Amino acid sequence: MTERNPLPAVTVLGLGSMGQALAGTFLDAGHPTTIWNRSPGKGDDLIARGASRAATPADAVRAGEVVVVCVLNYDAAQKILDQVTAADLAGRVLVNLTSDTPERAREAAARAAELGVDYLDGAVMVPVPMIGTPDALIFHSGSRSAYEKYEGTLKALGGQSAYVGEDHGLAAVFDLSVLDFFWTAMHGLVHGFSLAGRDGVRAAALVPFLKANVALVESAVERTAADIDAGTYPGIVDNLAMEAEGIEHIVHAAEHRGLDATALRGVLAAARRAVDLGHGADTWTSTIEGIRNPA
Amino acid sequence: MTERNPLPAVTVLGLGSMGQALAGTFLDAGHPTTIWNRSPGKGDDLIARGASRAATPADAVRAGEVVVVCVLNYDAAQKILDQVTAADLAGRVLVNLTSDTPERAREAAARAAELGVDYLDGAVMVPVPMIGTPDALIFHSGSRSAYEKYEGTLKALGGQSAYVGEDHGLAAVFDLSVLDFFWTAMHGLVHGFSLAGRDGVRAAALVPFLKANVALVESAVERTAADIDAGTYPGIVDNLAMEAEGIEHIVHAAEHRGLDATALRGVLAAARRAVDLGHGADTWTSTIEGIRNPA
Repeated sequence: MTERNPLPAVTVLGLGSMGQALAGTFLDAGHPTTIWNRSPGKGDDLIARGASRAATPADAVRAGEVVVVCVLNYDAAQKILDQVTAADLAGRVLVNLTSDTPERAREAAARAAELGVDYLDGAVMVPVPMIGTPDALIFHSGSRSAYEKYEGTLKALGGQSAYVGEDHGLAAVFDLSVLDFFWTAMHGLVHGFSLAGRDGVRAAALVPFLKANVALVESAVERTAADIDAGTYPGIVDNLAMEAEGIEHIVHAAEHRGLDATALRGVLAAARRAVDLGHGADTWTSTIEGIRNPA
Repeated sequence: MTERNPLPAVTVLGLGSMGQALAGTFLDAGHPTTIWNRSPGKGDDLIARGASRAATPADAVRAGEVVVVCVLNYDAAQKILDQVTAADLAGRVLVNLTSDTPERAREAAARAAELGVDYLDGAVMVPVPMIGTPDALIFHSGSRSAYEKYEGTLKALGGQSAYVGEDHGLAAVFDLSVLDFFWTAMHGLVHGFSLAGRDGVRAAALVPFLKANVALVESAVERTAADIDAGTYPGIVDNLAMEAEGIEHIVHAAEHRGLDATALRGVLAAARRAVDLGHGADTWTSTIEGIRNPA
């Protein structure tokens, strides 16, 4: 029999629904797990499953080798860390899974540097029920050595988790950018259904065609990225000026049917701006020049 | 040896790049093919491949059993059909693949009914190079019996082609609705890249995460449609009010970086309006109520 190193002790500060899911996942994976929450009365079931409750943030931090913070925002995280000294944190890795902006993440990293603690900033990309599954994605940025040392521990929380760079703001940047696409696309999906619905088309009738169309978006991701990184948008298969004409027809059809088309008008405006900048014969990707140059 | 019926004779009116692709595909499939174009000098290569050139629209129509019109818009189509009599069209099926609005398609259908001709309105969903491939999609609406009789002929132009209903406007409705999703999503894709780019992230670094995210959109299509058709949006896995907060962070991050965020502001406004209408605890799909009730 091979003797295995014990799994690192972990601490979870903050027991909202996400914090509880994180702590529960660590417990299931076999990590000695300490929990703390600002207001009492949370986490009794975690205690029943083997977690230890710390009386103070300092006690909690000292109990863990990996210290995960997951609270409402960075102000709340800072209030907790104000109760902890550099000595409490010595030799530990601080992993902040609180959701906030890249700028706040960089500020928090500067404070962590003053305390001399290895710091990772993370962005949880999945809802609570997916925590701990192989498909769950958490972006991490900051201390590369800390990520590499605890990658196994952190991947217990999400099998797709990824380290995206040493700039502590990058996890939030990746988070915002992916969700920028996601919510825009999800709006387009609902909007497409709303448009067809005005002419009596049931949403179910559109499903196979929209699914096939999503596959076209998927197939465009790589080519779009390559054109953006190259900074050239050769219009071989498409033509932005014609596409803008087509989008204007959709805007008119939607508004003629009494639907809000503000978002699609924004899509059209960015495309038109790129045409005005000389990209009328280029590919759709050239709309990035319209986005980069607001009216 | 089984004796086969000869393939129906077809006529293509209009030899822009799309019309030429349609005629060439019919020739490749073995249909006797007659072509006509308003201005001369187009289609010489089609003649070389075996097509017959008609001197007038009336001659062209009489030469075909299936008569395909593909010109710039419905005004141009009407000008051609004004040169054709009911006797010319007798027993033929008219297939209008000219792109226009549902309203114009219904007007054209009314005129076709006066002429006593079976009429299909179609919307070509793929670029010219895809015409004739198994993956190409053309929506057809109108005369069901005409579609069923000539389905094989029409599917030569696109293997995924589909009949979507007897209302002649429906092909255009499906066209607009699918492209409504597509262009909105494609804007979101470019916008996500633009946001990350401001913090020095190369587009290629986002590709695997965006591809995984597109798969989430694909998996949402069916559930979204079911909720819309049921008219209920139970917030079991998501919460619109929280999602709107998240989107506001993305808007601010984009504008803080000097990017245009008009489209995403429109996404946010529709979501906020749905929250105001009482859907804050419902799922994202309830944004359809915000879209249906413009400010």
